[in-house]
Amino acid sequence: MNKIITISREYGAGGHSIGRQVAEQLGIPFYDRDIVRETVKASGFDMDTVEHDQEDVSRADFLLKSICSLSAPSYNDTQDAIHEVQRAVILQFAKAGPCVILGRCADDILRRAGVECLNVFIHASDVHRAARVSELTGCTSAAELQKMLAKKDGSRHTYYTHYTGKRWGDSRNYHLTLDSGALGYARCVQLIVAAAAD
Amino acid sequence: MNKIITISREYGAGGHSIGRQVAEQLGIPFYDRDIVRETVKASGFDMDTVEHDQEDVSRADFLLKSICSLSAPSYNDTQDAIHEVQRAVILQFAKAGPCVILGRCADDILRRAGVECLNVFIHASDVHRAARVSELTGCTSAAELQKMLAKKDGSRHTYYTHYTGKRWGDSRNYHLTLDSGALGYARCVQLIVAAAAD
Repeated sequence: MNKIITISREYGAGGHSIGRQVAEQLGIPFYDRDIVRETVKASGFDMDTVEHDQEDVSRADFLLKSICSLSAPSYNDTQDAIHEVQRAVILQFAKAGPCVILGRCADDILRRAGVECLNVFIHASDVHRAARVSELTGCTSAAELQKMLAKKDGSRHTYYTHYTGKRWGDSRNYHLTLDSGALGYARCVQLIVAAAAD
Repeated sequence: MNKIITISREYGAGGHSIGRQVAEQLGIPFYDRDIVRETVKASGFDMDTVEHDQEDVSRADFLLKSICSLSAPSYNDTQDAIHEVQRAVILQFAKAGPCVILGRCADDILRRAGVECLNVFIHASDVHRAARVSELTGCTSAAELQKMLAKKDGSRHTYYTHYTGKRWGDSRNYHLTLDSGALGYARCVQLIVAAAAD
């Protein structure tokens, strides 16, 4: 197994857990928080700014920002600057050898750089995701959970579309997409490992 | 293995060949031409009309028809009538037990009827698909091949969206999507069989 695996995922679909297990089974590094840490080191931005860069930008904020700037958001914009450093960090991790990289448009960043990857997208129904997020956060209000899913999905969609020009979750951007709610996490791990095999 | 497997696919992505091999490996029926034959028998329409129902409707034709009727296309419309008979044929095949069903919105038809399925979508890059279509048709003009891909994709997209209200190829409509160009047909067969296992 000589591949870099990127995992994009809907919020609450278990992408982190599945990605970690794939990396463990293959004996290769799993990069998620490390990307944040390295980006903080390299950019000078604080942990909180980098950590919430992707997740907390709402579609409305983003549109407003685009309209107010009267042009495409510039490289000097905090978000673009963080993305640029993150891009370099991801390329460096990929250069070091086979690994699993979670989120952050790694699929598109590596494709553009001509790095061979297995690109995976993981999704699940709202019912499955709400149950998972409830488990993780302790929140038991169905309305609150639904709001959290919609907000995170909106942010990820906006972020992905902005930086890649492609539709988040369209099967044609990935080599493999999986419904983790219907298939189960263990089956997803098995399928990704099988897809990555030589 | 106790599942019905539906396979939707881009033109030239090898969905027919992959579906047939999955059915052979699992020892279950593969329905493609049988759906056409049964629909001809049950509807009274001739083979040619039924056969080209899905494939040959261009997006422009479809829009024009919708505008001219000044309302949503009616049930008496040939296309809707064929779809309705095809729906019944697909439900009957599914009722008879595990099988592989190719195309024709079977994923959505069975989901609405509450039938448990594994829904698969198969796609590939234009380069891979053009090579495959060239092999199948003998056409060697790159421009002609590109035109064929665009026409068939347009028809399938329009047909799927019209009858399901969903976006053709969005990963969230399927349990598993595969890039057959990057993964290879044999690997796709292996992954579908593994995903369908109990």
